[in-house]
Amino acid sequence: MLPISFLSDYGYRDEFVGVCHGVILRLAPEAQIIDISHAIPPHNVRAGALTLKRAIPFMPVGVHLAVVDPGVGTERRALALRCEDGNMFVGPDNGLLWPAIEQSGGVLAAADVSESPDRPEDVSATFHGRDVFAPAAARLSLDVPVEFAGEPIDPESVAKLELPAPDVAPGRISAHVLTIDRFGNLQLNVSRADLASARLAAERRLLLEAKGQQFQAIHGETFADAPPSQLVVFEDSAGVVSIAVNAGKATEMLGVDQDDRVTLEPCP
Amino acid sequence: MLPISFLSDYGYRDEFVGVCHGVILRLAPEAQIIDISHAIPPHNVRAGALTLKRAIPFMPVGVHLAVVDPGVGTERRALALRCEDGNMFVGPDNGLLWPAIEQSGGVLAAADVSESPDRPEDVSATFHGRDVFAPAAARLSLDVPVEFAGEPIDPESVAKLELPAPDVAPGRISAHVLTIDRFGNLQLNVSRADLASARLAAERRLLLEAKGQQFQAIHGETFADAPPSQLVVFEDSAGVVSIAVNAGKATEMLGVDQDDRVTLEPCP
Amino acid sequence: MLPISFLSDYGYRDEFVGVCHGVILRLAPEAQIIDISHAIPPHNVRAGALTLKRAIPFMPVGVHLAVVDPGVGTERRALALRCEDGNMFVGPDNGLLWPAIEQSGGVLAAADVSESPDRPEDVSATFHGRDVFAPAAARLSLDVPVEFAGEPIDPESVAKLELPAPDVAPGRISAHVLTIDRFGNLQLNVSRADLASARLAAERRLLLEAKGQQFQAIHGETFADAPPSQLVVFEDSAGVVSIAVNAGKATEMLGVDQDDRVTLEPCP
Repeated sequence: MLPISFLSDYGYRDEFVGVCHGVILRLAPEAQIIDISHAIPPHNVRAGALTLKRAIPFMPVGVHLAVVDPGVGTERRALALRCEDGNMFVGPDNGLLWPAIEQSGGVLAAADVSESPDRPEDVSATFHGRDVFAPAAARLSLDVPVEFAGEPIDPESVAKLELPAPDVAPGRISAHVLTIDRFGNLQLNVSRADLASARLAAERRLLLEAKGQQFQAIHGETFADAPPSQLVVFEDSAGVVSIAVNAGKATEMLGVDQDDRVTLEPCP
Repeated sequence: MLPISFLSDYGYRDEFVGVCHGVILRLAPEAQIIDISHAIPPHNVRAGALTLKRAIPFMPVGVHLAVVDPGVGTERRALALRCEDGNMFVGPDNGLLWPAIEQSGGVLAAADVSESPDRPEDVSATFHGRDVFAPAAARLSLDVPVEFAGEPIDPESVAKLELPAPDVAPGRISAHVLTIDRFGNLQLNVSRADLASARLAAERRLLLEAKGQQFQAIHGETFADAPPSQLVVFEDSAGVVSIAVNAGKATEMLGVDQDDRVTLEPCP
Repeated sequence: MLPISFLSDYGYRDEFVGVCHGVILRLAPEAQIIDISHAIPPHNVRAGALTLKRAIPFMPVGVHLAVVDPGVGTERRALALRCEDGNMFVGPDNGLLWPAIEQSGGVLAAADVSESPDRPEDVSATFHGRDVFAPAAARLSLDVPVEFAGEPIDPESVAKLELPAPDVAPGRISAHVLTIDRFGNLQLNVSRADLASARLAAERRLLLEAKGQQFQAIHGETFADAPPSQLVVFEDSAGVVSIAVNAGKATEMLGVDQDDRVTLEPCP
């Protein structure tokens, strides 16, 4: 029996998440289900993909069910796959699984579970989490090999996800806001290595530019390295360069949203 | 040991849901609890009743605890009941359980658990989920028969729930918006049979009227049957005729809310 | 194996809660985790402390993990402690645990788990829930004594939490709004004993003053003791004097927020 982790954009307002739990537990009554998050912004495949990647290293090795599926009911395939490190993933073939797959060493075996024997006779056109993905995850949790969970497909054919690259030059990084968390912190598409390449790693103060406005920020390790209500640039708990406000919200101070650009330079 | 599913309007902001889990697990330490949803709009018995009905077919057969209880502390009874198909329900006697009961074949046995021996000595006047319903659900999960969980009552006396009926005429249905989901999709009080009666089942395009405005919609099977930002009328995963916008929110495009009227006609 | 209850301000939007579950289940695969709430307002230590205190009496005796931690990454200690009544608590040393500790009879043994052997090699500066507190809670759930979970510290040195006291005079209480729940009900820093001291216990109607405006309220036991849309003052399910509106929201009618003052007097 393998544990199942579960991420989706189903939210907490409706019965969608509970119904998927029910479907899994009808097929695998002893299943252990760990909810990663179900508040991925609706249809935001990239936010789902990045959240999944961040969570997987902290989950027990097992089955990871992820559903952010704007193309539900179209010809996109429904995937079950096993990775190099033993983790298995179930979800739509739209790039959602890609960053986590790469982190898990790539795909060893893959199947299209659209026509799996576990799905109900009358699959809905709009709720494949319930009718296709949850049954496939339950089956994998019972140690059914990926190859037997559906129609085998070429592991190389799994959809990839393109992420925006930062512009890194000496003394200047032009970054994208990849995601925003509950605390209003911004995660950039910038790594510690990018900071070093841009010769910003040793700067104790940084100049941020966002939406045509300039801001000074402390370059620190945690929120409290900045005075209250001041900006701090730090490497977050997932190893991503991020912007926060000590006891405040960086989104509000900078007025930025997902995909907006922020530039980082040394303070003059 | 029977699994317990749990639906309420307690929300996720306070400790209410966690406290009910705690109460159940103190009485039945091995209990398996499946949260259906706790974000039913506060005191909205009808939204809770319809969500419960939609979820039950996907839950393991067992005990279903549901609490949306604007009359808490009044004389309304507290129910535990067993249905024809083996499912058991626990909740207030205000119609909340009715659509699920009908779907489960009707009530075979019922009890009023207001004075159950499992409740605490000092039952609060405002939190019967914790003090009355959760203990009763825990007891039923331990295979205690409904008849022994409280004072037996006439199964016929359980409160029913009236739902608004659509006006179905040849070429025209006047419908109510029953519920709205996270994605902004509208569920109407209209079935596939109603579409057939109104001779709208074969129409590929429908004219919607809401709030005095007219809209054209594709009549399809999934969101992607409409172009992006266009309306689609479809039978949803619960078998209910619904309105969505592909990659958008039907609530916002139509400007409607629960209980508003929408009419469906053929496109001229 | 002891159950673990879990409260935080991590919210439901990100993977934070799920990641802590994952960390616990990697260390203690059979752990039973009860989520109390994760929607404590961000960094609101007092709201977290009061919610934790209200929930504990209904949780199985075991390990209680609580994280509301605005000082993460600073010198504040990370606590694991055992109380007189057998309950164990894990969380930051910032007062968050204090009201629950007092209710559990005080601290018998305490340790600083900042340098615990269970933490990862590379502890993040901003996510001690994942890297410090969840591993410590997992270890305690496996019956490791508090004394072995970290560096023993003086039980008397645990941070306390000051709560505002009401002004109680004959015929008049000046109270603070301590917390607000999902239903818009206000919990005051007033007990039944305070009502008696102020000779308000027997009054059937009370005069409330908030934000310079006066309101009449029924003094009752449950919402329905007031007519619809009318105010009711009652002892809530946690034994705290509270203000609600029958089928409405007291926050909206009174226009008050956490920490605002409300006075209670007899109706003239």
